[in-house]
Amino acid sequence: MSNETTNGAPLARYAAAKRVGDFLFLSGVIAVDPARRMIVRGFDDIPDEAAERLGRTGEFSSDIKQGPILAQSWYVLDAIRQIIEREGGQMSDVFKLVQYFRNLDHFPAYSQVRRQFFPGEPPVSTVVEVSAMLPTDDILIEVEATAYLPLGGTKES
Amino acid sequence: MSNETTNGAPLARYAAAKRVGDFLFLSGVIAVDPARRMIVRGFDDIPDEAAERLGRTGEFSSDIKQGPILAQSWYVLDAIRQIIEREGGQMSDVFKLVQYFRNLDHFPAYSQVRRQFFPGEPPVSTVVEVSAMLPTDDILIEVEATAYLPLGGTKES
Amino acid sequence: MSNETTNGAPLARYAAAKRVGDFLFLSGVIAVDPARRMIVRGFDDIPDEAAERLGRTGEFSSDIKQGPILAQSWYVLDAIRQIIEREGGQMSDVFKLVQYFRNLDHFPAYSQVRRQFFPGEPPVSTVVEVSAMLPTDDILIEVEATAYLPLGGTKES
Amino acid sequence: MSNETTNGAPLARYAAAKRVGDFLFLSGVIAVDPARRMIVRGFDDIPDEAAERLGRTGEFSSDIKQGPILAQSWYVLDAIRQIIEREGGQMSDVFKLVQYFRNLDHFPAYSQVRRQFFPGEPPVSTVVEVSAMLPTDDILIEVEATAYLPLGGTKES
Amino acid sequence: MSNETTNGAPLARYAAAKRVGDFLFLSGVIAVDPARRMIVRGFDDIPDEAAERLGRTGEFSSDIKQGPILAQSWYVLDAIRQIIEREGGQMSDVFKLVQYFRNLDHFPAYSQVRRQFFPGEPPVSTVVEVSAMLPTDDILIEVEATAYLPLGGTKES
Amino acid sequence: MSNETTNGAPLARYAAAKRVGDFLFLSGVIAVDPARRMIVRGFDDIPDEAAERLGRTGEFSSDIKQGPILAQSWYVLDAIRQIIEREGGQMSDVFKLVQYFRNLDHFPAYSQVRRQFFPGEPPVSTVVEVSAMLPTDDILIEVEATAYLPLGGTKES
Repeated sequence: MSNETTNGAPLARYAAAKRVGDFLFLSGVIAVDPARRMIVRGFDDIPDEAAERLGRTGEFSSDIKQGPILAQSWYVLDAIRQIIEREGGQMSDVFKLVQYFRNLDHFPAYSQVRRQFFPGEPPVSTVVEVSAMLPTDDILIEVEATAYLPLGGTKES
Repeated sequence: MSNETTNGAPLARYAAAKRVGDFLFLSGVIAVDPARRMIVRGFDDIPDEAAERLGRTGEFSSDIKQGPILAQSWYVLDAIRQIIEREGGQMSDVFKLVQYFRNLDHFPAYSQVRRQFFPGEPPVSTVVEVSAMLPTDDILIEVEATAYLPLGGTKES
Repeated sequence: MSNETTNGAPLARYAAAKRVGDFLFLSGVIAVDPARRMIVRGFDDIPDEAAERLGRTGEFSSDIKQGPILAQSWYVLDAIRQIIEREGGQMSDVFKLVQYFRNLDHFPAYSQVRRQFFPGEPPVSTVVEVSAMLPTDDILIEVEATAYLPLGGTKES
Repeated sequence: MSNETTNGAPLARYAAAKRVGDFLFLSGVIAVDPARRMIVRGFDDIPDEAAERLGRTGEFSSDIKQGPILAQSWYVLDAIRQIIEREGGQMSDVFKLVQYFRNLDHFPAYSQVRRQFFPGEPPVSTVVEVSAMLPTDDILIEVEATAYLPLGGTKES
Repeated sequence: MSNETTNGAPLARYAAAKRVGDFLFLSGVIAVDPARRMIVRGFDDIPDEAAERLGRTGEFSSDIKQGPILAQSWYVLDAIRQIIEREGGQMSDVFKLVQYFRNLDHFPAYSQVRRQFFPGEPPVSTVVEVSAMLPTDDILIEVEATAYLPLGGTKES
Repeated sequence: MSNETTNGAPLARYAAAKRVGDFLFLSGVIAVDPARRMIVRGFDDIPDEAAERLGRTGEFSSDIKQGPILAQSWYVLDAIRQIIEREGGQMSDVFKLVQYFRNLDHFPAYSQVRRQFFPGEPPVSTVVEVSAMLPTDDILIEVEATAYLPLGGTKES
């Protein structure tokens, strides 16, 4: 979910995605479940099979440290996948990712999850560490994706 | 005005906007008045009717808190509007905004102003808090806009 | 080198650049020599003629202050130039740069180097100061470039 | 190697291990290669097959962040294994570990390595984060192991 | 609960206690309820009669200051007692405690609770202040106990 | 003296040492003179012949720097020696030391003193730097010793 919606009534108006010419531009996505209006905090907040694939160990001390970034990474990339598919494309149509982190020590964990979503040719990527993202400091990562879905159905990617 | 010009003679060379194919790309814009080479600091630095529309109360304590972010937000979005119109488009042609803040507590005020400039379908949007922007720490916000102005005049936005 | 890459072997999961439609999108580039896996730290890490053009003085105290940002700026922009040329374009095809700094006091030095790479019409530009970039705190700058290389060979840039 | 030896000539005298009754007590072990007198800093400082088993990704930015703790954890546990085997026992004879960390965010990575060395019944374990260990701040972890090797060859562990 | 454990399911890779020869070694114990996976934060998280014995006053300001360390101390020592009893011993068989604190200002409160669990001859004791323990900074104390339960049933403690 | 006694009347109850099976376990010892209830602060607080052997120079600037750690190290190790001898053993029966420092820069000085107390085969040793020890920040070091004094008088150390 884009991070500009809060408190039920959207605080800000935004478009999750916009088709422009042959491109699909997405708003930055963060790990907030819009239905429950909750920030994804760990493995308990994502489906079990996703948690298993991410390497949930069952060890409380390991999972409490790794869980938040792994779960948020999965949630954000899966949300992007859903948006792309809703627009008639697939994850492999995403050619560019700009990734904002609160702490770049989280990059290896995020990268592991990204490999699951991009098993083929990876997108171009920019990664920076920033001070914060909306809506609160519990958000560890924000990803802005751009996809190429040429009208007429052909692609030179 | 883009933040790379300082001290009269541009310290850096930049293009405020560039048309590329069907797109119009803009440099990040900050609230500095190039003519007077002054940072917009409050309601006094923008036209009265804009200040009224933003909700200037006339009360010192309220206006001094909200004034800077409201005035800078208005100034930046209005500068973007002027650039787009100069290129033959309109504000509604802007489909994407990347917004950099020094303090995300300012987001609600900025968002209120943005609604004034985008009364229709809003653009896709990415928002992050960063450490600083040029030219000084008085700059609270920088906005990088992208518009779609297809040659030949038609649009599928 | 993009900051997600490796030790030569193509085991990294990023694309340095991707051609999409008429555009060439590049990953953010940082000053790391992928072959030697070393961060560019000063004039000694770039070719002599480049160092001379950047104004290496030979005085230890001056060069140690300015050397890192000048050398990293040169390295990054030269890497971008090589990527563009490898894709059949030239530096003047770059129309947009997003530049991330760890310290905006470095901007003037970077800007001096950028003028060397863009002697003609400059690109649109966004500049922000962020907390950090990969892989370590020795990285002072990251630049994400976008170029326009229309298929069919014509250009309206 | 125990952390009390520095600069060639041992600064301190210590015993790497001592058999006492039915027990084998070990000094705290840190990741310093005594022969080369070098601190283990990453995957390059341990055997390739060990690095592969630890999950070296080949991605520079991931390996530079994860490499140090994974490599030091492997090195320390492998050193403990060698000491135990030299005394006629095996790793499964270790029944207790006291583990000192400089940063408990490293615990999940260490725990992953420990599982490789203790595939059967795990030892009792105490984990704390301390300010520092000898010889320098590059040391991320120190492990003090105790094993049970009853004379006479029987065991009630 | 030892600080490496989990959510009930025995997927954790540690042993709460191990009998070795005539000794019973315990992992460091912290105040986390494994069933509910919750950190003990105050009097509300322990049984009422225990809270009364610890001197709960009912006054918010007093209980909020002393409650956390008193409740965690009780929880940890009671967990140790349960482990010892499960192994066929009693609290007085514990002859050694190593106690790690995040803040030694908490020692007097902990000591008051320890007297309740060791009314007879006290164990040998080592006390230090460290930077942190798993799983989070809410943990104030960790206690590693060792007991003597000679096989054959005699004891010279 | 163990660090849990303060203010004359022991604040905490502890046992300085306990014989358990063939072992003698000691509480962590710190440099506080129980009779005078004073922290050992320098050469003046230990016997002259001990100070001479430690290398007291008579020069104020040298002795004020090295005096505290040398005097506390001597005091702690001598206290341990006295406890062991009281229990019928000798210093060489100590096979293990866990040494907690407030500042590892003090290790070389401590190690020099330790060599005086262990001229023969040294014990196994673990050394860490922690935040603090009881009773105050003037305590620089705490040492927890374990000795092997098999009943029946024979020893396989």
